[in-house]
Amino acid sequence: MNSSFPPNGRKRAREYGIRIGVLPTGENNAITDVEGVLVGHVTLNDERIGMHTGVTAIRPHPGNVFQEKVPCGVFLGNGFGKMTGYAQVKELGNLETPIILTNTMSIAAAIDGLIDWTFEYEENEDVMSVNCFVGETNDSGVNDIRARFVQKAHVLSALKHAASGPVVEGAVGAGTGTKAFGFKAGIGTASRKLPDSLGGWTVGALVQANFGGILTIDGEALGLELGGYPYEKPIEAALANAMENADGSIMMIVATDAPLDARGLERLAKRAFMGMTRTGGVASNGSGDFAVAFSTAESVRVKHKAPEFSLEGGKLVRNDDMTPLFMAAIEATEEAILNSLFLAHDMTGSDGKFVRAMPLEPVLARLRAAGKLHAD
Amino acid sequence: MNSSFPPNGRKRAREYGIRIGVLPTGENNAITDVEGVLVGHVTLNDERIGMHTGVTAIRPHPGNVFQEKVPCGVFLGNGFGKMTGYAQVKELGNLETPIILTNTMSIAAAIDGLIDWTFEYEENEDVMSVNCFVGETNDSGVNDIRARFVQKAHVLSALKHAASGPVVEGAVGAGTGTKAFGFKAGIGTASRKLPDSLGGWTVGALVQANFGGILTIDGEALGLELGGYPYEKPIEAALANAMENADGSIMMIVATDAPLDARGLERLAKRAFMGMTRTGGVASNGSGDFAVAFSTAESVRVKHKAPEFSLEGGKLVRNDDMTPLFMAAIEATEEAILNSLFLAHDMTGSDGKFVRAMPLEPVLARLRAAGKLHAD
Amino acid sequence: MNSSFPPNGRKRAREYGIRIGVLPTGENNAITDVEGVLVGHVTLNDERIGMHTGVTAIRPHPGNVFQEKVPCGVFLGNGFGKMTGYAQVKELGNLETPIILTNTMSIAAAIDGLIDWTFEYEENEDVMSVNCFVGETNDSGVNDIRARFVQKAHVLSALKHAASGPVVEGAVGAGTGTKAFGFKAGIGTASRKLPDSLGGWTVGALVQANFGGILTIDGEALGLELGGYPYEKPIEAALANAMENADGSIMMIVATDAPLDARGLERLAKRAFMGMTRTGGVASNGSGDFAVAFSTAESVRVKHKAPEFSLEGGKLVRNDDMTPLFMAAIEATEEAILNSLFLAHDMTGSDGKFVRAMPLEPVLARLRAAGKLHAD
Amino acid sequence: MNSSFPPNGRKRAREYGIRIGVLPTGENNAITDVEGVLVGHVTLNDERIGMHTGVTAIRPHPGNVFQEKVPCGVFLGNGFGKMTGYAQVKELGNLETPIILTNTMSIAAAIDGLIDWTFEYEENEDVMSVNCFVGETNDSGVNDIRARFVQKAHVLSALKHAASGPVVEGAVGAGTGTKAFGFKAGIGTASRKLPDSLGGWTVGALVQANFGGILTIDGEALGLELGGYPYEKPIEAALANAMENADGSIMMIVATDAPLDARGLERLAKRAFMGMTRTGGVASNGSGDFAVAFSTAESVRVKHKAPEFSLEGGKLVRNDDMTPLFMAAIEATEEAILNSLFLAHDMTGSDGKFVRAMPLEPVLARLRAAGKLHAD
Repeated sequence: MNSSFPPNGRKRAREYGIRIGVLPTGENNAITDVEGVLVGHVTLNDERIGMHTGVTAIRPHPGNVFQEKVPCGVFLGNGFGKMTGYAQVKELGNLETPIILTNTMSIAAAIDGLIDWTFEYEENEDVMSVNCFVGETNDSGVNDIRARFVQKAHVLSALKHAASGPVVEGAVGAGTGTKAFGFKAGIGTASRKLPDSLGGWTVGALVQANFGGILTIDGEALGLELGGYPYEKPIEAALANAMENADGSIMMIVATDAPLDARGLERLAKRAFMGMTRTGGVASNGSGDFAVAFSTAESVRVKHKAPEFSLEGGKLVRNDDMTPLFMAAIEATEEAILNSLFLAHDMTGSDGKFVRAMPLEPVLARLRAAGKLHAD
Repeated sequence: MNSSFPPNGRKRAREYGIRIGVLPTGENNAITDVEGVLVGHVTLNDERIGMHTGVTAIRPHPGNVFQEKVPCGVFLGNGFGKMTGYAQVKELGNLETPIILTNTMSIAAAIDGLIDWTFEYEENEDVMSVNCFVGETNDSGVNDIRARFVQKAHVLSALKHAASGPVVEGAVGAGTGTKAFGFKAGIGTASRKLPDSLGGWTVGALVQANFGGILTIDGEALGLELGGYPYEKPIEAALANAMENADGSIMMIVATDAPLDARGLERLAKRAFMGMTRTGGVASNGSGDFAVAFSTAESVRVKHKAPEFSLEGGKLVRNDDMTPLFMAAIEATEEAILNSLFLAHDMTGSDGKFVRAMPLEPVLARLRAAGKLHAD
Repeated sequence: MNSSFPPNGRKRAREYGIRIGVLPTGENNAITDVEGVLVGHVTLNDERIGMHTGVTAIRPHPGNVFQEKVPCGVFLGNGFGKMTGYAQVKELGNLETPIILTNTMSIAAAIDGLIDWTFEYEENEDVMSVNCFVGETNDSGVNDIRARFVQKAHVLSALKHAASGPVVEGAVGAGTGTKAFGFKAGIGTASRKLPDSLGGWTVGALVQANFGGILTIDGEALGLELGGYPYEKPIEAALANAMENADGSIMMIVATDAPLDARGLERLAKRAFMGMTRTGGVASNGSGDFAVAFSTAESVRVKHKAPEFSLEGGKLVRNDDMTPLFMAAIEATEEAILNSLFLAHDMTGSDGKFVRAMPLEPVLARLRAAGKLHAD
Repeated sequence: MNSSFPPNGRKRAREYGIRIGVLPTGENNAITDVEGVLVGHVTLNDERIGMHTGVTAIRPHPGNVFQEKVPCGVFLGNGFGKMTGYAQVKELGNLETPIILTNTMSIAAAIDGLIDWTFEYEENEDVMSVNCFVGETNDSGVNDIRARFVQKAHVLSALKHAASGPVVEGAVGAGTGTKAFGFKAGIGTASRKLPDSLGGWTVGALVQANFGGILTIDGEALGLELGGYPYEKPIEAALANAMENADGSIMMIVATDAPLDARGLERLAKRAFMGMTRTGGVASNGSGDFAVAFSTAESVRVKHKAPEFSLEGGKLVRNDDMTPLFMAAIEATEEAILNSLFLAHDMTGSDGKFVRAMPLEPVLARLRAAGKLHAD
């Protein structure tokens, strides 16, 4: 699947020789390397009506998430966004639905879809309250967002077809219409696997990239190569460019099999935000930069129906041993963002708005010159 | 209107001689005493299909809220709830839609309604992002909540018919199906007007009451009178009763004409939570207790389209002068909750679930004996 | 000890027949009912130099707290205060020193004392970082606070002499110079023991009361009885009185043997703030109202020196079972505050400032008339 | 002054041709470019007793800060630290003392010094409460931190001698004993001046750098050059190195003349944390990474003694116009950290511990090869 998409034969950052950080990746270099995590997309494209949007579903495990909730933490990087479900996750420390990503104006459809999804499980027949976790970014740059194309059936389909293994990236699912740093972007993913000596855990990230700043790849701030800044143009023009492309948003989803509680996961989520920073993001005023992290470890799941006054939960990674997990979250998020750019393709959107994909040639040339394309 | 509702002739707490706190009320003892604030209800009752729910809309001013945003602060008392809009209000410090209250499962309809409402203004034709502020409580005690009866047309109607002046209370609007302390409750409101020597500001509160604990009216914890606790029954039975009725939620909306910024308003919101505490609420695990406060002062409104790099905002009430406002918020919220109970009526809900209104006779007898019914 | 102090024969609230809430107390109705908790006071009185202050130490267990840290959560009710140690407790979720309470200007001495205390343990010889947890209230109403009388030797003495069993209350230790609601107050404590059917846990509270509002005892707002408000005097005068006595601060310490993590304990701390609210406190602008809660359960302690990449911690009380603990924290804190007032005595402070204790006769007469003095 | 220190003739990052970001610097490329800001150091070195520590004072304006408080916001990046003053700044939104930086174990001396400093102003003679703002990092790598060498006289001296103009950087003041990324570091500063078209404001940063991760200079992750990672060594060894040097802490102080309130400044403080991220910091578990931002604009200062019920404050930069300020804070912080490394010198500390300064040759060679040393 990964190999046939996008149509234009673009590849993932790592396939070009880019190496972010020092930690090894998981098997597919994807959030699905965290065992049990499933990802599904529904992509909605119809140029005639200006529809370029979609849904991406992340299921923390294949089971009934309402009955087996997973510990979860959220970090609000910059809050110009409409994510739902925050307060309850913060209070109770867990996630009771899959995570749906979509566009800003389709939050309602996503909520309704998650409710339907939850109601469909027979053992949820008495459920009267569902805390739907929905993230969004604003794809109005190419999508006619005011039309609210996403329907709850799309949400249900993304959930149903969510799968393990490689994840399709670029302008798909909730990333169909997003852009980053002025270029077409979308969904990206990556993972890191810690050496056994550092715990052996896996950390995966998936992003819906729609934000801005000054695009930086493995430390190379790209300007002139991309028709932009920094030093050869008047500063005002360069900045105006950066400003124009700064708003947007990014949703960052982090999964790990390390047994962590909500506090530990909130710390991990904050590191995803740090990874975003390394790609040149500035968390501009108009950006909704949210990071959410959950643990798939069975030992720390929260059973919905448990005998009263039983105790629950299990042993956790110690504070002292968190730093390698932090590094993994930073690296995986940084690389996931790059993948969202490398795999996106040009798009002509509603009202004829054209958004080009990040041009590969000048970018790779610059990276090569800087010694940042590696052979192995 | 107030006089003909509820049908059973019940009256507001103050009409029985109950006096909460020491500050005088505003003209209607309602959130609408804060000039410009409008409240509208849509009430949905149909016993044949178990529908007992609705919508309450609070508009901070009669204009286009997206174009003239109001400073706003939110306090998460206990986060077991699904309120939307939190992150952006926290980040930007303002509210850009009216507030919609409804049931837990109808958040999506409320969001869609607010988007439609916002799109209907001609000057919003370029708006591509709307931070919908929706609160909810769970009315599954009498309403067939899984049926999701609320439609966006209901939301639009509540917004359109929102009015100043007296506010209908009890089992109406978003309070149609709620209960508190085991009794039928609903919407309640109250206000306080500070003496000029303390600033002269008005503070109004409106609640959607659906929570629990040990009902306490002006300091009288009611037990035996209501067939309950505390001292004459085995403690376990009393507690089981309290526990059974503890979950639910309460949405508390505070309005003021005092010029405050988001930080000051978040402090005010926290005092609404304190007012709730004085009615015997315990903020039980399963309760979504949220308080939101906004300022209607024109001097501190945030214009959506302003020339770049102009400054905005105006002078504020000093920290040192906040305490009277705090007292007003505590008192108004406490009284608003009582009103929601005093004006509710018995209801037979879905599946024949019967919820009685708080019985007046024993309650008033107890208050009278304790010297808490005042003549004037 | 409890029986001979204060000198004037005043008694605890419960001994007069006051019953707060519905839950039974622990054995001594003190924070020390939570097994292992130790409390120590050093009281500094010297009228000649205007010295009326002191130190209260709360040790979560008799051992080396740095080596066996306890889970801990903090709630900032109103942040006008100088508590130290917050950020690290929030980040790591645990407490690594005993808690010291003292006056606002003696934070430095308390920190130095806690560092010395920590260094004195042989197994701490390599310790290079200590997160000292110090709370304070401002006793300048009777104490010459600018003189900074407290020395680290006083802190060490309070720690060393901390003991289990009954706790001396009133104008002692860190409460020597504090007042609440315009009266002399100080240290107070209380506890609740849950029935086995609700978990069987013990929750204890200790307060350093120095705050204001409108004094309310078991729901009776006291006014005329105390030469004050509310209804018979012009509202401005009543309010001015309330305002004058509103500022101050309250430190609330909650201990429990229930196995909780930092998130659960932060929730518990918030309920202590709710208990304060029920005594008529308004969390005025100038008040530093902080609540801190810790768990003494051995299963959830955090060993300072553990093998790398081992897991730690243990099973916890479920969210669903927290409500009884919340009620216990509310009730214990409310009663602890009352004890701080009942056991305080008149004091003439620096510059001849006189602060009277809460007069017993009118208060008890009012409570008796309202049916709030119980025989058993 | 700048030119004669450090003794070894090392220069600031920019003098070697390093250019961080796209915005121009202020006159001195220092926090003191924000008019009115004063910085003072006291440096304590005595090899015989293992003393390598000190104090750095940042005064937001030359006046009495208690009487003219400045708006202030704090961001807790990673809370393993002992910063004091947080809760009150968060609640009231302002700073009422200068900021003192020192070592972890000398917080008490810093508090006492700030109290003395505040008391020394005649118009503060009635002040009974001072919220001292103190930050720290742990210099036990070279300093005998348990000896607590810093005295309040040192604090007073740093305050008194604080000056405008160039700031001495490297191993001075509170940075005397700190290290970052395994090298000797210390104090660093930088500034950015926005073009008039973006508001024209100045943003300055000063850091006390004592943290770790994988040192990255203008995007170049330095490994082999420094005897370290990443690709040529077994990953475990590289990581072990990174882990070993990850803990520590960083205090980041941001000043601006833009009129902002506490909410806007908290947003700015968060961007300082983002700047830190770009130097390769990972906010490791054991790091206290705190950022504080204040505004020097006179229009938004908070007068301590104002007529009751007067309004206060003034117009602010709009949310929509914040992004350039965010970029400035990110860039200035990143460059300030580099300066702390470039200007530090080798040091032999207590117990003979040797910490070398970052070796210039290999670092500059790598930067030159990557095209990151600019001529102008």
